Amino acid sequence: MNMTPSQRITSLGLVLPPAPPPAGLYKPVLVVGEFLFISGQGPMKSDGTYITGRVGEDLNLGQAKLAAEQVGLTMLSTIKTHFGDIDRIKRLVKTLGMVNCTPEFDQQPLVINGFSELMADVFGTDMGVGARSAVGIVLPGHVAVEIEAMFQLH
Amino acid sequence: MNMTPSQRITSLGLVLPPAPPPAGLYKPVLVVGEFLFISGQGPMKSDGTYITGRVGEDLNLGQAKLAAEQVGLTMLSTIKTHFGDIDRIKRLVKTLGMVNCTPEFDQQPLVINGFSELMADVFGTDMGVGARSAVGIVLPGHVAVEIEAMFQLH
Amino acid sequence: MNMTPSQRITSLGLVLPPAPPPAGLYKPVLVVGEFLFISGQGPMKSDGTYITGRVGEDLNLGQAKLAAEQVGLTMLSTIKTHFGDIDRIKRLVKTLGMVNCTPEFDQQPLVINGFSELMADVFGTDMGVGARSAVGIVLPGHVAVEIEAMFQLH
Repeated sequence: MNMTPSQRITSLGLVLPPAPPPAGLYKPVLVVGEFLFISGQGPMKSDGTYITGRVGEDLNLGQAKLAAEQVGLTMLSTIKTHFGDIDRIKRLVKTLGMVNCTPEFDQQPLVINGFSELMADVFGTDMGVGARSAVGIVLPGHVAVEIEAMFQLH
Repeated sequence: MNMTPSQRITSLGLVLPPAPPPAGLYKPVLVVGEFLFISGQGPMKSDGTYITGRVGEDLNLGQAKLAAEQVGLTMLSTIKTHFGDIDRIKRLVKTLGMVNCTPEFDQQPLVINGFSELMADVFGTDMGVGARSAVGIVLPGHVAVEIEAMFQLH
Repeated sequence: MNMTPSQRITSLGLVLPPAPPPAGLYKPVLVVGEFLFISGQGPMKSDGTYITGRVGEDLNLGQAKLAAEQVGLTMLSTIKTHFGDIDRIKRLVKTLGMVNCTPEFDQQPLVINGFSELMADVFGTDMGVGARSAVGIVLPGHVAVEIEAMFQLH
């Protein structure tokens, strides 16, 4: 695991979707001092459309976890496109994982693990794991999962 | 656009509502180092009452966007009252925009643009635009929109 | 009130529950520079189970406020277990208080006061009070309240 994050992306054969255009008046990525803030990202597929649907109704746990992983790939694409060198990222600091789910669904943490496991694969099992909350919420465009994150830079 | 934020507030003829009293045990504004944290703000009107209702049911998109703009005016009032000199703000860093909406409503980003466009008008199209998430949620007092934000100071 | 936070915990006779095991791939506590980030915490009881239920349906306001206080005790336990010396905490910076509630329930701030009053008791009426939002949301494991927080260290 002495590879850089960009080497791990290549080595894992990860396919990044296009970076989504902003859905409103905000910056997809903002750097302030040593911190990189990422706006809420949805699960964009390679064809530029999103994984949509309500977890517990339209999607099951496995499908929702894959959607969260796709959010991670989307976020990596956003970082490469709007920030540049992904190897300048030192660590994941904080994740807010939001699942579009029924009021009865209660396994948001297992869903968001799809994102968190990808971050650990790319940035390492220490530096790729941060503080986190995982909750259920109503999301724009009926996307299945949306995640915002804060990273620390080298 | 070489005016200061306070000059822009005057020049745009913005009317700020009263700064809301805290709804619980928290500080409306907290400065830590170079960061200014603003607690969740609702859309207070000039008469001291809030814009309430569920978007997608009681309010349409246009009304909800106006409510988000009113949250922005409320936040400016809170900053002036509890912090003081609005011209010490360097930039908007991060916004969490929360819309009180039906499970079917999916245009939270267009709602929160009402806030974001005001911030861009007051702080500039670079410094007034930060990272953002816009989601649907259940809000205190049935207010239509609530927004928390983090700014960086000069 | 010239006691340290750990002395106040003893003096108030607070009983801390066990620190919960992480519910997914994240760190319960992460220190970055002068900031300590705490992942979303639920209201763990001394027997290791959580206070669950939907506020406005299964729990009333008083019960929900007690659940929020229990989240505070759980967070103190998490800090002691995963960070260590609670007296290294200088101040509470920011709280996101999330209440598992019906769409009709609108007193989230009064619920989260149960947490905020405990923080003020332990860290002081200035240093224990930060910026805050209090909202309604769907929570993992049907816990009644979940809170994430950011503290500043000495």
